[in-house]
Amino acid sequence: MQFTSEQRLDDGVREREFTLGEIPGFLWTPGSVSAPAPLILMGHPGGLRMMYPRLVARARQAAAEGFAAATIELPGSGDRPRSAAAEQARVDLRRAISAGEPVADEIVDRLVLPLVDQAVPEWRSALDALLSLPEIGGPVGYSGGVISVGVRLAVVEPRISAAVLFAGSFVPRIMFEEARQVTIPLHVLLQWDDEGNDRRMALDLFDALGSEEKTLHANMGGHTGVPQFAGEEANRFFARHLK
Amino acid sequence: MQFTSEQRLDDGVREREFTLGEIPGFLWTPGSVSAPAPLILMGHPGGLRMMYPRLVARARQAAAEGFAAATIELPGSGDRPRSAAAEQARVDLRRAISAGEPVADEIVDRLVLPLVDQAVPEWRSALDALLSLPEIGGPVGYSGGVISVGVRLAVVEPRISAAVLFAGSFVPRIMFEEARQVTIPLHVLLQWDDEGNDRRMALDLFDALGSEEKTLHANMGGHTGVPQFAGEEANRFFARHLK
Repeated sequence: MQFTSEQRLDDGVREREFTLGEIPGFLWTPGSVSAPAPLILMGHPGGLRMMYPRLVARARQAAAEGFAAATIELPGSGDRPRSAAAEQARVDLRRAISAGEPVADEIVDRLVLPLVDQAVPEWRSALDALLSLPEIGGPVGYSGGVISVGVRLAVVEPRISAAVLFAGSFVPRIMFEEARQVTIPLHVLLQWDDEGNDRRMALDLFDALGSEEKTLHANMGGHTGVPQFAGEEANRFFARHLK
Repeated sequence: MQFTSEQRLDDGVREREFTLGEIPGFLWTPGSVSAPAPLILMGHPGGLRMMYPRLVARARQAAAEGFAAATIELPGSGDRPRSAAAEQARVDLRRAISAGEPVADEIVDRLVLPLVDQAVPEWRSALDALLSLPEIGGPVGYSGGVISVGVRLAVVEPRISAAVLFAGSFVPRIMFEEARQVTIPLHVLLQWDDEGNDRRMALDLFDALGSEEKTLHANMGGHTGVPQFAGEEANRFFARHLK
């Protein structure tokens, strides 16, 4: 992991950009750190530059609770090389949605499964590098979408001990089987009128998740309309489980 | 409203029992009150004596936030005269559930609609009396079940400015129309595996509620398994809207 830039935000949060091989990422750590901080891996739909304002806002909230927060670019997003197959699947998904048609499972599979297969090992490599830093101790949480990435990480990565999953993207049917294998405490966010999501599928996925402790917080509004208080409740969930 | 007994709980909360005509009730006020307190009307399934431990626990949580809390017995419950029709409907409901049969709408209508018609005016009379006390100022929230009572109160009682609704009881189809008329901020609690509830119906009711701000918090477990942190989140909802 190579740090490529560093700045202090006005609230004292330390922001560092890094590259992990070809993968760009951000690390935010609290302004004043006494002990090594717990870490929240912040998932997102891809496109670090476009997502930066929302990511840094989430990182500030996390830092205020004493958490470090980090994220990496997704395969095929931002400055990373595109996948022709994924681009085609995205076009097919958008066309089906804008035509008001049901989204075929095979489109979702083409879009999401290769992304999960490539992204999850990258997040795990990032976790290796981040946990080697003296200012980061763990425990580790995952927060956000892509929810299929979060589910796969929750199943395969034993260092992740709690997760806030954002049910804001289509989920391949096969992921429901993995969802049943999740056992860590979960806090699931759903935007009730999310235009790019299937509410019924999101509720079925919540039902399928195997964790004994899981909570669903559904709020009104579209994909990007998660209210401020919902972010604060998600932080309190991490405060209960990562401290 | 006649006060019939008074005691101080160990945390300083002042507990008073009262009667409103034939209707028994409880009022809890914070140990130290500077200004007239906001009021939370605490709904319940009926049976004040049986419900007392859970009611007083909720009242203590509310008092810790500076809220007064009050509740009254439901028609046909506790020491109040039984309704033969309601008792028969309850028997029919239990029989259908224990037989694993779908609960017929007409059973739910027979059980719930007369209860709502009688209870709601009683809650409004209690509110008149409670708001006449110098130590209670408002604003006023309603918290709990019976959810059909909460929905009706939210529609017809303009002094209630926010509500925490517990989706833990069957809802007559006709109440869905009233649900669309609700406009106050809502925080809806659902126990995902509630044995005495229909999850699909609860989600449909949440969808039908007309309020622009409404949040659904679903947790694992049965009817009585609402986690402590869910109660704290409900209090924070009231803190946002009743202060």
